[in-house]
Amino acid sequence: MCEANAYIIRDGKEELVMEAVDKIEPENDGIQMVNIFGDQKFLRAHIHALFLVNHKIILKE
Amino acid sequence: MCEANAYIIRDGKEELVMEAVDKIEPENDGIQMVNIFGDQKFLRAHIHALFLVNHKIILKE
Repeated sequence: MCEANAYIIRDGKEELVMEAVDKIEPENDGIQMVNIFGDQKFLRAHIHALFLVNHKIILKE
Repeated sequence: MCEANAYIIRDGKEELVMEAVDKIEPENDGIQMVNIFGDQKFLRAHIHALFLVNHKIILKE
């Protein structure tokens, strides 16, 4: 499975915000994420970088 | 390996723009992508959606 973990950069550190993310949809004011378990999370953040081979999504506020 | 294929939506259709994408970095005026072979591509587009389990990156101009 190729889901990824989502981290947000806060105070220069990566903080895990959601594991096993499958779907991401940037919206006007943030990011909507859904993981492989069907859990949803909305964050007021934007995509900073994706490292898919390393299963990492980096978000920034 | 968990790279994904990047498609851009043009005229309502998904057009393949890069295979085996590993890294994506949104920039001010577009998207910088690097695939697992080290090839780089810059596109004047933004991330519309990601479907990681299905290895799909959807971009929009």
